[in-house]
Amino acid sequence: PTTGTPIYKVARRHRTSPYPLASMDEAFSSILRNAVPLPIISKHYSDAMDHVLAEDIRAKSPIPPFPASIMDGYAVIASDTPCDLNVVGSSVCDRDNCNHSSGVTVEKGQAFRITTGAPLPVGANAVVPVEDTLLLKETDNGREELEVRILKLVRAGESVRPIGCDIKTGEVVIKSSTKIGPSECGILASVGATTVKVHQKPTVAVFSTGSELASPETESLGPGEIRDSNRILLITTLQSNNFKTLDFGIVPDKPGELKAALLSACEKADVVVTTGGVSMGEKDFLKEILVNIGAKIEFGRVFMKPGKPSTFATLQSGDRKKCIFALPGKFVSAVVTCNLFVLPALRKLSGFLEPRPTILSAKLSSEVRLDARPEYQRVQLRWEPQEPIPWAQSTGRQVSSRLLSMLTANALLMLPPRSDTCTSIKRGEIVDAMVIDRF
Amino acid sequence: PTTGTPIYKVARRHRTSPYPLASMDEAFSSILRNAVPLPIISKHYSDAMDHVLAEDIRAKSPIPPFPASIMDGYAVIASDTPCDLNVVGSSVCDRDNCNHSSGVTVEKGQAFRITTGAPLPVGANAVVPVEDTLLLKETDNGREELEVRILKLVRAGESVRPIGCDIKTGEVVIKSSTKIGPSECGILASVGATTVKVHQKPTVAVFSTGSELASPETESLGPGEIRDSNRILLITTLQSNNFKTLDFGIVPDKPGELKAALLSACEKADVVVTTGGVSMGEKDFLKEILVNIGAKIEFGRVFMKPGKPSTFATLQSGDRKKCIFALPGKFVSAVVTCNLFVLPALRKLSGFLEPRPTILSAKLSSEVRLDARPEYQRVQLRWEPQEPIPWAQSTGRQVSSRLLSMLTANALLMLPPRSDTCTSIKRGEIVDAMVIDRF
Ligand code: NWS
Ligand code: NWS
Repeated sequence: PTTGTPIYKVARRHRTSPYPLASMDEAFSSILRNAVPLPIISKHYSDAMDHVLAEDIRAKSPIPPFPASIMDGYAVIASDTPCDLNVVGSSVCDRDNCNHSSGVTVEKGQAFRITTGAPLPVGANAVVPVEDTLLLKETDNGREELEVRILKLVRAGESVRPIGCDIKTGEVVIKSSTKIGPSECGILASVGATTVKVHQKPTVAVFSTGSELASPETESLGPGEIRDSNRILLITTLQSNNFKTLDFGIVPDKPGELKAALLSACEKADVVVTTGGVSMGEKDFLKEILVNIGAKIEFGRVFMKPGKPSTFATLQSGDRKKCIFALPGKFVSAVVTCNLFVLPALRKLSGFLEPRPTILSAKLSSEVRLDARPEYQRVQLRWEPQEPIPWAQSTGRQVSSRLLSMLTANALLMLPPRSDTCTSIKRGEIVDAMVIDRF
Repeated sequence: PTTGTPIYKVARRHRTSPYPLASMDEAFSSILRNAVPLPIISKHYSDAMDHVLAEDIRAKSPIPPFPASIMDGYAVIASDTPCDLNVVGSSVCDRDNCNHSSGVTVEKGQAFRITTGAPLPVGANAVVPVEDTLLLKETDNGREELEVRILKLVRAGESVRPIGCDIKTGEVVIKSSTKIGPSECGILASVGATTVKVHQKPTVAVFSTGSELASPETESLGPGEIRDSNRILLITTLQSNNFKTLDFGIVPDKPGELKAALLSACEKADVVVTTGGVSMGEKDFLKEILVNIGAKIEFGRVFMKPGKPSTFATLQSGDRKKCIFALPGKFVSAVVTCNLFVLPALRKLSGFLEPRPTILSAKLSSEVRLDARPEYQRVQLRWEPQEPIPWAQSTGRQVSSRLLSMLTANALLMLPPRSDTCTSIKRGEIVDAMVIDRF
């Protein structure tokens, strides 16, 4: 459709929004209900970072696989110590030449030079660290030790890790539903679980809508133009949270182009995120186009500040349900609603057991006045020495067009709506804050 | 050199470590003193994520660049309201057809249909949201509005963002030394600062040392073999912190191969991280080889648990100083010391003003016994509703070979060494915790 079609007419005729105001709880449950974990795929462990495991990982063999020394020193028979011992060999093991415990036996009166992590030779039952010994005799060329004095009494088992003491055969080392981070990757490597079952991760298509938008590269703006900042903002926000994005560019406020972009984005991605065109303007076609392509508007407005026109729709496409987030055009509203709505949906799709953001407590560093709507103010949390609760420092004037209020923000204050009895919260009082960045 | 050279002989002859035990403070200051910010380079803003700005960014033009409507509605002359007005046009602006304020003048008795963000036409000084109006008359085909009733009295300036109200021309929008995150990227786009000066970021070469190490792919291990888990652990830890890594594989305990690997890594990378070969074993050549290649050992042991054999060396190479971290071979020691030493160095090299990790307060969920050394225990921090201070839940048995003690850990408890008067800390007491993961 082009300008003048029914879509256009419907949009320009609204005097009030036909969409009820959803509460934050309603909006959030709608998202979590509609975002279902994506199918299970196999991945090489080294490509599985930030994926959620879809199987229990069991150890096929124990760690350590042999009784291993915890120290650099001498493998001995504990009941011999303290004493002088003959050095019968040493654990030197490399690709060309492997000379270690297997084959060697330590007998009464003998010691075997051993390194940290090396297998204990047969017969030995303890290790004495080299610091607790004295070299008594060596070969003339100084290349082999012949006799050593053990200065300390050691107990059986001392400085030895028995077979399987860290991980037993068959033990579940990582549970299904665990997110794979660096340590999990390392543990997968250590048990040789090189191919693992994980949930597929969603791909997110992002585009900005608005005929007023110019590329950020534009040197001097034409009349009425502004630079498109939302697209890179959302793409980098999603990428920082380890999600893959597809950049669908700027789409002007033309129903035909918007419809084509939405359809193509839904085809290529699991989730579509757009900004702009969701309010009451004569060019705000997005909701109508969503209905037109067969999507279901799950909510079209939310009782919140900023982000009131936030829209969430779903589109059945084959056996999958695509999630579409049409976020408000203002910079701050876009990033706040991306954190509040889009990231939890992406985590749920990825199979996270807990898709919700972390919420912690902070002390207000200045009084805040409450709004009629629940409000999400940008703050920087800072921990001061000797004070167990962090301070929440406002990032300045909180109007939603003010881009700079996002600078240094690592959390969103979650302010309740004002009531007859409570219209402001004083400095020093404790409020909830949602984490939106690494600390 | 091959086995049998002086390097080998020196190593096997030590009965006690020749390296003094550095305190944590000494180790940390040595790292921060030796890691100096890398040179300044130019980057496209879209590739500048996680880089530190090396210049103040100023706005070349204001935001908004014109007086802009905050609402979808009608641009009016405030003193007219409330009243009935003739609709004289609308702000429709796209690539083909730009019809907005420029050229249009609103006079007494007239209203101009305007969308959120659009420029105010000349003559108008306020905007009335569409919800506060009533359409009185339109053209027969229903495509143009002719007369509208303004139901509310509005003040001059209402629902208008004056020129530069969010960002003024010449204003510093982002200060030098700021780390570029998603919001900073978006702000750079909005002011058209598409090429920015940033500090170069360090590249990190990683290898594992040890002749006992087999590839994680190995189906069944040979006698004395274990799978190399440290390399992927460190590589993913560094990558999760947005640093580029070079994988130098497994290097056996042979002086010649270790020397070649170190030299090549120092040539290709700014920072080299290895594990293993730094303790007291007859195959622990790393420190000797570092000295042999001309590196300076800044510290060779640290009074800490785990991580005592942690070694930090620097190598002057042209006009740059390469940082070499030879970390202990145990899995847990490797990741703990990577967080404590390597990441702060990388942040300092990247130009971070605050390279140190975030430290916050947590309540112990079970009693801990203190060690003679300052100890870094792995814990999971959890915020419970209504409790402002998080609980630190131990990840289980803390022996440094136990890989599983890293699972779910998002912080390291920073336990002081035990003293005559204090040998343990009770459940519920508050301790410092260092953040090592996203919350
Ligand atoms: N009558 C009536 N009018 C209303 C509301 C209402 O209740 N009634 N609600 C408010 C609220 S209330 Mo709020 O979050 O609670 O503070 S957003 C909101 C707003 C959402 O409007 P929307 O249709 O989503 O966006 P639009 O396209 O109009 O752009 C919005 C702004 O952002 C800029 N912008 C767009 N895209 C980009 C980009 N890519 N990069 C950089 N800037 C960009 C664009 O220039 C413009 O200045 O409409 C308002 N108008
Ligand atoms: N006499 C004496 N002996 C001492 C100490 C001392 O004071 N005196 N100190 C301790 C401490 S004290 Mo601690 O951190 O405070 O708990 S580490 C530490 C240790 C450090 O030894 P190092 O030389 O660094 O490492 P090695 O190569 O020996 O390996 C160590 C372990 O890790 C495994 N390992 C290696 N690489 C990998 C890899 N890539 N993947 C998977 N596992 C790997 C390897 O098999 C082995 O089990 O030596 C001890 N011995």
